[in-house]
Parts: sequence; structure tokens; C-alpha cells
Amino acid sequence: MRFPNNVLPFTKGIDMMALNQIFKAESIAVVGASKDETKRGYQAIRTLMNGGYEGTIFPVNPREARVLGLKCYKNVLDIDEPVDLALITTPAQTVPYILADCGKKGIQGAVIIAGGFGELGTEGKKLEDEIVATATQFNIRMVGPNTSGIINTWSNMNLVGIRNVPKGDIALITQSGNIALHIITEAMLKSQKGFSYYVGVGNEADIKFHEYLEYFRNDPATKAILMYVEGLRDGRKFLQQVYKTSREKPIILLKSGRSSTGQKSAGSHTGALAGISEVAKTCFERAGIINIENPAELFPAAETLSSLPTIKNDRIAILADGGGHATIAADLLSDNGVQIPELSKKTQERLREILPNNASVVNPVDVAGGTDSNPSIFADCARILLEDRNIGGLLIVGLFGGYSIRFAEQLRFMEEDAAHRMGKLVKSTGKPLILQSLYNAVKPHSLELLRYYGIPVYESLDIACKCISVLAQYGRYISTYETKTNFELRWGVRAKKECNDIINLARYEKRNILLEHEAKDLLRLHRAPVSQDRLAKTEEDAVRIARDIDGDIVLKIVSPDILHKSEAGGVRLKLKHDIEIRDAFREIIANAMAFDPTARIKGCIVSPMMEDGLEVIIGTKIDKQFGPVIMFGIGGILVEVVKDVAFRVLPISRSAANKMIKEIKSAPILEGFRGKPPLDKRAISDLLLVVSEIIEAYPDIEEMDLNPVIVHPQGIDVVDARIILKEKTYDEL
Amino acid sequence: MRFPNNVLPFTKGIDMMALNQIFKAESIAVVGASKDETKRGYQAIRTLMNGGYEGTIFPVNPREARVLGLKCYKNVLDIDEPVDLALITTPAQTVPYILADCGKKGIQGAVIIAGGFGELGTEGKKLEDEIVATATQFNIRMVGPNTSGIINTWSNMNLVGIRNVPKGDIALITQSGNIALHIITEAMLKSQKGFSYYVGVGNEADIKFHEYLEYFRNDPATKAILMYVEGLRDGRKFLQQVYKTSREKPIILLKSGRSSTGQKSAGSHTGALAGISEVAKTCFERAGIINIENPAELFPAAETLSSLPTIKNDRIAILADGGGHATIAADLLSDNGVQIPELSKKTQERLREILPNNASVVNPVDVAGGTDSNPSIFADCARILLEDRNIGGLLIVGLFGGYSIRFAEQLRFMEEDAAHRMGKLVKSTGKPLILQSLYNAVKPHSLELLRYYGIPVYESLDIACKCISVLAQYGRYISTYETKTNFELRWGVRAKKECNDIINLARYEKRNILLEHEAKDLLRLHRAPVSQDRLAKTEEDAVRIARDIDGDIVLKIVSPDILHKSEAGGVRLKLKHDIEIRDAFREIIANAMAFDPTARIKGCIVSPMMEDGLEVIIGTKIDKQFGPVIMFGIGGILVEVVKDVAFRVLPISRSAANKMIKEIKSAPILEGFRGKPPLDKRAISDLLLVVSEIIEAYPDIEEMDLNPVIVHPQGIDVVDARIILKEKTYDEL
Repeated sequence: MRFPNNVLPFTKGIDMMALNQIFKAESIAVVGASKDETKRGYQAIRTLMNGGYEGTIFPVNPREARVLGLKCYKNVLDIDEPVDLALITTPAQTVPYILADCGKKGIQGAVIIAGGFGELGTEGKKLEDEIVATATQFNIRMVGPNTSGIINTWSNMNLVGIRNVPKGDIALITQSGNIALHIITEAMLKSQKGFSYYVGVGNEADIKFHEYLEYFRNDPATKAILMYVEGLRDGRKFLQQVYKTSREKPIILLKSGRSSTGQKSAGSHTGALAGISEVAKTCFERAGIINIENPAELFPAAETLSSLPTIKNDRIAILADGGGHATIAADLLSDNGVQIPELSKKTQERLREILPNNASVVNPVDVAGGTDSNPSIFADCARILLEDRNIGGLLIVGLFGGYSIRFAEQLRFMEEDAAHRMGKLVKSTGKPLILQSLYNAVKPHSLELLRYYGIPVYESLDIACKCISVLAQYGRYISTYETKTNFELRWGVRAKKECNDIINLARYEKRNILLEHEAKDLLRLHRAPVSQDRLAKTEEDAVRIARDIDGDIVLKIVSPDILHKSEAGGVRLKLKHDIEIRDAFREIIANAMAFDPTARIKGCIVSPMMEDGLEVIIGTKIDKQFGPVIMFGIGGILVEVVKDVAFRVLPISRSAANKMIKEIKSAPILEGFRGKPPLDKRAISDLLLVVSEIIEAYPDIEEMDLNPVIVHPQGIDVVDARIILKEKTYDEL
Repeated sequence: MRFPNNVLPFTKGIDMMALNQIFKAESIAVVGASKDETKRGYQAIRTLMNGGYEGTIFPVNPREARVLGLKCYKNVLDIDEPVDLALITTPAQTVPYILADCGKKGIQGAVIIAGGFGELGTEGKKLEDEIVATATQFNIRMVGPNTSGIINTWSNMNLVGIRNVPKGDIALITQSGNIALHIITEAMLKSQKGFSYYVGVGNEADIKFHEYLEYFRNDPATKAILMYVEGLRDGRKFLQQVYKTSREKPIILLKSGRSSTGQKSAGSHTGALAGISEVAKTCFERAGIINIENPAELFPAAETLSSLPTIKNDRIAILADGGGHATIAADLLSDNGVQIPELSKKTQERLREILPNNASVVNPVDVAGGTDSNPSIFADCARILLEDRNIGGLLIVGLFGGYSIRFAEQLRFMEEDAAHRMGKLVKSTGKPLILQSLYNAVKPHSLELLRYYGIPVYESLDIACKCISVLAQYGRYISTYETKTNFELRWGVRAKKECNDIINLARYEKRNILLEHEAKDLLRLHRAPVSQDRLAKTEEDAVRIARDIDGDIVLKIVSPDILHKSEAGGVRLKLKHDIEIRDAFREIIANAMAFDPTARIKGCIVSPMMEDGLEVIIGTKIDKQFGPVIMFGIGGILVEVVKDVAFRVLPISRSAANKMIKEIKSAPILEGFRGKPPLDKRAISDLLLVVSEIIEAYPDIEEMDLNPVIVHPQGIDVVDARIILKEKTYDEL
């Protein structure tokens, strides 16, 4: 059976009850409670008390009798009531002992603030392993260590100490306390939206990103999930969970560390090209993540996605009161890949009726002074535009909110009237509306009104355009989700035993590379289009094998110690007669022995000479964060110089394979370049699926490199194939 | 003699005195003065009076006796004092008459507000031509029509009606009144910087972008020029002026209309590829413009460049109080192409002395809590970093300014102390410092202090990173300016007569295309590496010509009516013997006649068969905005599918030619791909310079297409050449 979401099986075994006990703790022991105002053990208790936390707080500190008016316990074991959660604010070295006490007390949740664990290297990692062992022993689930803490705004459980965290429906997950502070401060100063939960994941020694995701997916108070990620400890589980979550709630993510990444990968072609960040970006997008690169767009995107309906048809109207704003908005929306279609005749006529002659009613709509003396006309235009069936969402740009400042004080009331009417349009039409106003910072009442109706207002054109665009992006994702699940299971697993024999032989011979004919045999057993190449150990063998082959013959050296055959003089092409074959065989063996006298030489592979066609490359490797990934590109310059390649995390579906083929810049070549006939794209996607199947079936495979693969107008030939097995398994033999 | 700035001659004949009289008018006639508060003729006078304009205001309106307490004249001719400038606020139709009156009165400057001219099409264009004629007749220089007006903040001459325009040293030039309003409002609300002048260029019927640029270049009150441009009427003159201006003052520009452009170009290869926006972007950057795409960065970039010294060595240090901000800033700076070098040992030691052990002192520097209880340590770190000789500028990111909010109220004073000390660092070290603070919107006093010292403070990491980056970008431009002027004049003009004969022959024969051998003759006369191809009119000719050629022969059809020779069966390669040549000649002629019975057939061109090598393409065309442009790329897929090409406005220098060659993504192929020897890049740049020379020498040429050009390890061959002449001249014959 295949996984229902086509790509990865849903994560299993996430214990939601344990996370629930942490996030909805009704009693908290603050270990390290303090009277010193600069200490976290003081601040945490003060914040809980001042914030109106309704649960019970138990300060714990052997040296204090009372803290902030509360009785202080010497040890968690001394507390005579049940405790849901321990907030541990003491130094790293003390944590193992405290955790053991918590375990004995029966506390099943802990938030560990101290740094000084895995992030400091080997020594710290040892301490981290120790606390994980203790936690496992006592069945405690941990947030952190090295975390800024967690917040549940609805129960006023604030274990972070950031004041005035606005309540709302966005769950915030970060790997940086300062970025959390940044986002929360931004929300507080500029928005009417807020947060359901915050969690600083810290070192993820126990609870990991994907578990928080699953928790917030299930949480009815959360409508959108905003994440700041620096690195993933288990990218595959994370992706699995993202697939599951993003179809229900939008995930808005900024992944930092783009700049230094990609340099570490090395090795074979595929290795050198599959820079982590490229893989991450592609698979985040495929999994439905709203990927953000500019941090200024992070909170606005989450605000928008949690407030407004999505755009179903990718088509946006722009309403402006000046040509400049209209033109820039059109540029920025085009950059974001959404459509700005011409308006229907009817819509244009309706706009004409209420706008002056010099107004532009195409799209962008420019009212051209038509609102200068009556800004409430904005609401009429907005209604007409959102009532157009061809329009999925509306972006209003320019001066709205500031007509009273720019023109005349009394226009304020007309703006407020328009705000009420526009505010109701979202509900009545089911379509989103976003407003950009250059007067946003002045906080006029009309803009406050729009926010009251859930309409986001931004000062920056760039941010407003991004926000309306992510509504289209998420709408597109959701509407195509069903088709994505249509994975065809085309290949059987019957060939498996024979293939495992091939792999086992290599293991037995202490090779971690399959010989070319072995790799081809394995591919052929999975019905890949590989010619009947066979290994010839002698001249006689070669001549005999060649007799079964139509057309010219190719001989290539077979040796586990010679990777680059041409360099070793180990390839001879276009051989016709027996005598040529014999000469070539001897020559190749002699060349190879001269090239590397210690090389183990198995003979020559005898293949038919392939017809000319377009060379493509298919490769796989194991990505450190995401596991097996596949690469596709057109051979030679395009892959090696222009780096024009497509990546996917494996396994892939038919539709993913088709998209990979379309995605490369040089894809038009496949359609028939310079009058040549179109090439067999179906055969390429078949082969990509075979590779996906093989990588899944044989976890021993570290890397596969099909290079070149020759594509014809009909059919495809794998000319050379290399399969490398995992080193580890080899050592374990 | 060549132009001193290597690329374009400086604009001549800009009458600075006339612009001076407009921008520094000491007396203004407001034609269309009104008592109606909603009329521009009322608002302008009110703004001038309230704003403290020190010159004399003369309201003009035949129906009023007094306006706003001032005597109102029936006609400008009735004013008995000299008038420097007429602000004309009346409808379009009245403008020609009013302008004539102004002329008679001796007024030499006019600002024409009304729309309804060239922007409305043919009718409007007629009216616009009429006012231009009147203005010329009376020697009046005009701003507009269809302009929002002009402002000189220093004389309080505000003819726009935007209130509270802050005074400062940025000159603002826009093609949109709303964008001007946007930028001025942003400056007013968020900055301590302001403007020297504003001008809305309107339709540029008379005074054009480049004239304003020259005026502000000469203006001592202006330190930076901020522009919003939708379209250029004379891109070449604009560029000329930009070259002249940008070496003295930074020009920050947002060019909108990127999205719809590029689609209109058509025709030959070069035509199809040379999308306007691509050309604009490249030549703006080469001319030293700071090109901005995100409007939110526009004013900040101008603010920064007018406030701070540039960065000379491209090397920036980041100082952060949290890992998240540091990592994101590093990503964004890398995106912007600046360097974040490791700090010297000594600098690291100095930082270690004042920061806690867990701080990161590499770069980005992360104080890791080291400033939590004493934010004044920021100033110490900033000093150490800016004193490092390897560091050219500093970006501080995070919480500074909000320590009193985040941690403890009394930290406010330490922050203020740090602000004073950091403020003085810019002067003492001569290096720039920019600060990003998430508390910027709260407007803490310490950030106000930094602004007082001229240090820009932003809330957005993206904007702060962009701003420090443009200081590096402009610094790089200025420091390499001298080397850019090193233009080698390598080619004589002696060949001109013979070349003109070739062109004249085509004109005489009513062709606007040069035949292949003519194009090659022209190229050869300019010492381009073209083989001795000759036209054979008969079989006999062909055989005779072939005898002078070593190696194999190529025959190609010559007809002004057959552009695509291969399609017409008009090419035969690798001919060896006389008999082959004769057969091929007859066959080609027969094919051509069958292909197009009406084609004028001149014979066949006889060429040597070229050695194999790498095919490149060089093309030229006339860009509507910028005049002649040149394109370079590697032939086939890379140009046609991947669109991997480089553009320049002609003429080009040696260094520009070299950069074009390096600039394409596929440039590594030229270095020797897959073990092949490196190719002759010097020969390519020689050929680019020849093409530049030819296009300059023969303004009749509309388009040139050298395709393919074959590059060898030593030398280069132009295999095919096409030259198309301007249609217009052909009609005029």
C-alpha cells in the first residue's frame, strides 16, 4: 500500500496528550525560583502572576522560604499537590538531578531554559544525552534545553517573559528567542492579530519541530502556523508532518542559513549540485509551505493567511488612486507569479459609471482623481471588482485612510463609511481584500476599522503585494492537493530477490560500488530501458556476446577500482568486426592495467552502440536533512555549467516526475529544438519513477548516477549507470 | 577624440540659468488663482503664504480682484514688476494663450499643471506641440505639462501643496505625484532627513529628466538624487547625464513597468532577446545608478547615501545581540553580494575581552547576552569593529534602543550613552554604521540620538541590509570609475569610404539588407576576422574562386530575398573537387528558384570550410529608449532556450567587452570545458569592439547579426554575418 499523500507516510506515534499537558498545564513548578529581579526564576513567576495565569504556581528553591508572596518548596518532591509542568531555570549541570526528582514526583512535562548542552559540542552533547535518558526513564517530555520557553496566551501561561503578547490564532514556533521577540513586538505595535501559542524549540533534545506542528494542527485555537527555522534535525519527519498539516492550516516559514549552505556538499555530480538550500526550497514549496525570505513579510503573511479566505483562481485586481502605485503593484505581483487579468466588459462598464472619464478601468484600475472629493467611491469600486467572477481577490493601493490629511478634514467620514462597507465585502463575496496605505503609520480610524473587519493594512507596497500573493499561492496549493495524491504504483517488487543477490555479491566482495553491468541488471529487473549489456571476461566472450547484438559494438572496462573509464583508456566505440572487437578488448585491458596496476579487472562490458539523441542525467543521493533526493537535468553544459537541474525528495509521484521535467529552464529543448521532433517525455518520467522505486526498495543504495541517458523521439536508453552502496553497511558486514 | 567618460559624450547645451530661474524664482505669477479652496489656484497660493515663501506672489484671474488678501491681476501682462515664473493651473485648452502672454511679459519659466496633452494620444499631442512651439518662440522653459509641480524647500517655494515637506539634501524627481507624496510622507514620519527640491517631470514636453539631473548635480544643497521613473523619452541623453552625475552624487532610482516590458520587442534573435527592462537594468547599473526594485527601500537608500560615507572595500561586519538576527542579516547581505569577512585575530581578541565566553566573535558577532545588563557595550564593540582595517562598514541588528523595554528601565541611560559614542564613530573612523532595531517604531530616545548623528535606523532587517549594501555598491562604483575611463581607440576610420560604397549600393538597389559577402566585406574592412569569401555569379566563378582557398569549400546562396539559407536548400558544405563545386552551385540555384520563384538571385558565396570550435553569437539592435545596444552569448541552446546573454549600450570599452564575456552564466565554457583548451577570449573582445566601432561609424545600420561566430583556442571566425539597414532611410531615398 502507498501512503495516502503520495510522498511520505504520516508521522505516527506523536503523543498529543503529553504535549497537551505541557501547553495546557494547570500547575507549574518553577525550579530555580528567585528573589533576584534579573533572574529568570523571578521573572517567570512575576510574569505568570501579573499575566493572570489561572493555574497554580509552585516556586522551588532550597534556599528560599517564600518568593513573590508564594510558598517556596525545597524540592519538587515536597509539593503535596499534583504538578503538570516543571519550568527548570537552573544551570545546565543541575538539570539531570532536577529532572530525576521531577520524574519521581510524577511530573511528565519539563521546559529547560539553560543552554550549555548539545550546542557546545561533545561535552555538552554528553550532558544532553544524559537528560534525554533521564527523561525517557521517567516518561517526561521536554521542551528545550536552550529554549526561550513557551507561551499559551489563552491560559495566560507565559514562561518567556515577553510582556503584552497579543492573543490570537497564530501559533509561533522558532529556533531563536530574539526572532520571537521581533515578531511578537511587530504584532503588538502594528496589528490587531496575535498568537495562540509560542514555543522556542531550543535544541529539540526531546520534542521536535514535527511534534509541535502536529499539536498545533489539532489545536482548534490555531488557524496558521508561523515558523523560524535555522536547521532541521529530521527533515524527513518534518516534511511528513508538513504535508499533513499544510492541507489544513497554512504554514509560513523563514529558513535562514541560505548563504553558507550548499558549499558543504561534494562528491559525485549529483552531490555537487544538490545544495541543501535548493533541495529545502523545492521540497518546502511542494509540501505546501509558504516560504518567506524577507523577514519583514513573515508576520504579515501569517496575519493575512489567518484572517482572510484564500484566492481560488490566481487572479487579482488592483485598485489604485494613482498611476505610480498601480504600476509598481503590477510589477511586484508579476514578480510573485500571480495574474492581473483584464476586467470583463461588464465590470469595466460598471466602473465607468462611477469614475471620471480619464480613469483607467482595465486592471490595474486607476481612479485618476475620482475619489479625491469622495473616497467612499473606493467601496463601490471594491464591490464591483469583487463581484466580477473572474477576479479572486483585491489589492487596494495608495492614499486611502489619509484623504483627510491630504485633501480635506471632512473626507474622514466618507473614508470611515467606505471602511465599513469594504470590511463587509470579504464576508459577502468570500474573497479577500488587502489594503496598502501610505498613511498607515498615522493610524487613521478608517484603517483601524478595516483591521476590525479582519482586513490587513500595510504601509509597504512590497508587503501588501506579497500578502495578497500568498493567498493565491496557498489557494493554488489547496485546490491542487487532491490531484497530488494520485500516485500510480506501476512497478512490482518481484525483481527484488535477484536485485538483492546483486547487492549481496558486491557486499561479499567488499565492494561498495556495483559494476556497470550489475547496476544495469538491477535497473533492467525494474524494467528500466537498459540494453542487454553483458560482461565479457575474455576476447572470446566478447566476440560471442557481440554476435547477439545488432549494429555497432561498444566495449568498456569493468573494474570496481576504475570510476572514470574514458580517462583510463577503457572505452572503445563503434566496433564492427570480430577482429576489431578482439583488438579493442586487449587494448582496453592493457590500458587499464597500465592506468592502475593494482586495479581489480573483471573484463569488459559489451553493449550495442546507441543511436544519437539528447543526453540527460538522472541522479540520486542522500540529503543530510531530507533523506533520498532525485535530480534531473539535460547533460553537458546545462547541468555542469548552468546548473539547470530539478530536485525532489523521494519517492516521487507521476505528477512530480512530470513537473521535474517541465521545471528545468532548458525544458523547451525536449519539445523539439530547431525543427527536431519532440522527445519522449513520458519515457523520462517512467525512468524517474523507476529510479524512485529502486531507491525505495533498496535502502542500501547511497547514490545512483544514470549519465548519460539518451532520449529519443520514441524511447530512452540508459547508456551508463553507477550505483554506490552505503559505506556504513559495508563496514558492518 | 573619444569621450572622456568612455561611453557617451556628456550632454551639452543644458541651460542652467533657465532652470535656476525656475527653481529659485523670486516672483511667481499664479495663473488661475482662485478663492475656491478645492482649486489648485487657491491651494498653491495658500501653501506659498503659509509655508513662508519669501518671494512675491502675483495671483492672476480676470474674474477676481483679490485672492487670499493679495491683489489679483487680470492678465500677467498687467503685472508691473518682473516675474521669474508662471504657475499655470488653468485647463489644457487655455495654456497656449496664457503661455503667449507670459512670453510677451518676458517670463522665462513656466510650470504647467493641467493634464490633457500628449498622454491622451494624437489630439493631446497636437496641443502639446502647440505649447512647445509657443514656449520656444518666447524662449520659455517649461516644467510639465501634467505635472504635480515643483518644490524648493530652502526658499519655501512649494508649488505642489504637499504639506510639511521636510528640508534636507535629497533632490526628488518623479513621474508620479502619488509616489512623491508617498516618499515625502515616509520621510516626514520616519526620518530626520528631507529634501532640497522636488520636481514632477510630467510629460517632459520641454525640460527633460537629464536636464534636471544636471541641475541637481550643480546644486550645492543636493547630496543625493532620488528618482521614480516609468518611462524614458530619451534614454541615451539620460544615460549620458547619469554617467556625469553619478560620479559626483549618488542616484537612487526605481524604474517601474518591468512586468509588461520586454514583450514588445520582436524580430531577429537579438531583437527577441533584448527586452527593454534587461537592457535598462544593465545600463543603469553600469552608469552607477543604485537600482531599487522594492519601493520600501527607495527613500532609505537615498537617506543612507546622503548621510554616510561609502564603503571602500565591500567588507561589512555584523554586530547582533541574537543568533537569529545575525543569521538572517548574513543571508540578506550575501544576497546583496557584499562580503562578510572573518575578523582579524586582534579584533577577535579585543572583542573577547569585553564579551562573555559564549559570544561569537567571528563575523557576524553575536554578543550572546553580553549586553543584556549593559547595552553600552555595543559602542565598545562598534569601535573595535570599525577600527579593524579589514572592515569597511558596520551593521548593528537586534534590540538596541529597546533594552529598557525588554529588560530594565534604567538601561535606557546606558543606551543613550552608547548612542552618543556610536554616533561619533562615523566621523572618527570615516566608516558608515547602520542600525536595525525592532523597537524603532516605539521611537526611543537613543535611536533619535543616532539619527541626530546621521546614522539611519530601520525596523526592517531587509531594508537595513539593503542600505549598508548600497554604500558598498556605490563605493565600488566610485573606486573603479577611473579604470572605466580607459578606453582604447584601436580601429581607424579609413575604411569608411569603401564601406559607405557598400551601403550606398544596397540603397541604390533598394535593399535594406546587405548581402552576406557585402556584410563580410564591411566587417573585413574594419579588420574583423572574416575569411576571404567572394561572390560567384557562375559555376566557373565558383571553381576559380575555390582554387585560391585551402581545404574544403562551402557554397551558400546570395539573395536579398532569402534570409534563411538552409531552409531554401541554399547551403552546401565540405565540397572538395571542382566537379562537386559545380554540381553544388547548380543545385543551390535550382533549389533557391524553386523555393521562391520571385527571389532576386545574385549567385553563391564561396567560403572556406571553418574548423570546428565553440559557436558564439554577437548581435546589435536599436533599443527604443537607449539607442544602439550589443548582445553577446554562446550559440544554440544557451542563447535560444536559456536566454543566457549579456547586453551593453554602444559604444563599449575594452573593459566593458571583457565584462560582457565574463558576465554570461555559461562563461566557464570559454575557459575550457571537459578538458578542452581555453578559448580565445581576447579575440571575442576584439570582435565586440569592432562591432561597436562599426555601429558607431554607420548610423544607417539598424541591426547586425554575427551568427555563428566560431571561437578557437587561438583566433575566431565570423562564419555568417547579416546587416540590416534602417527602413526609414530606405524610404527617404
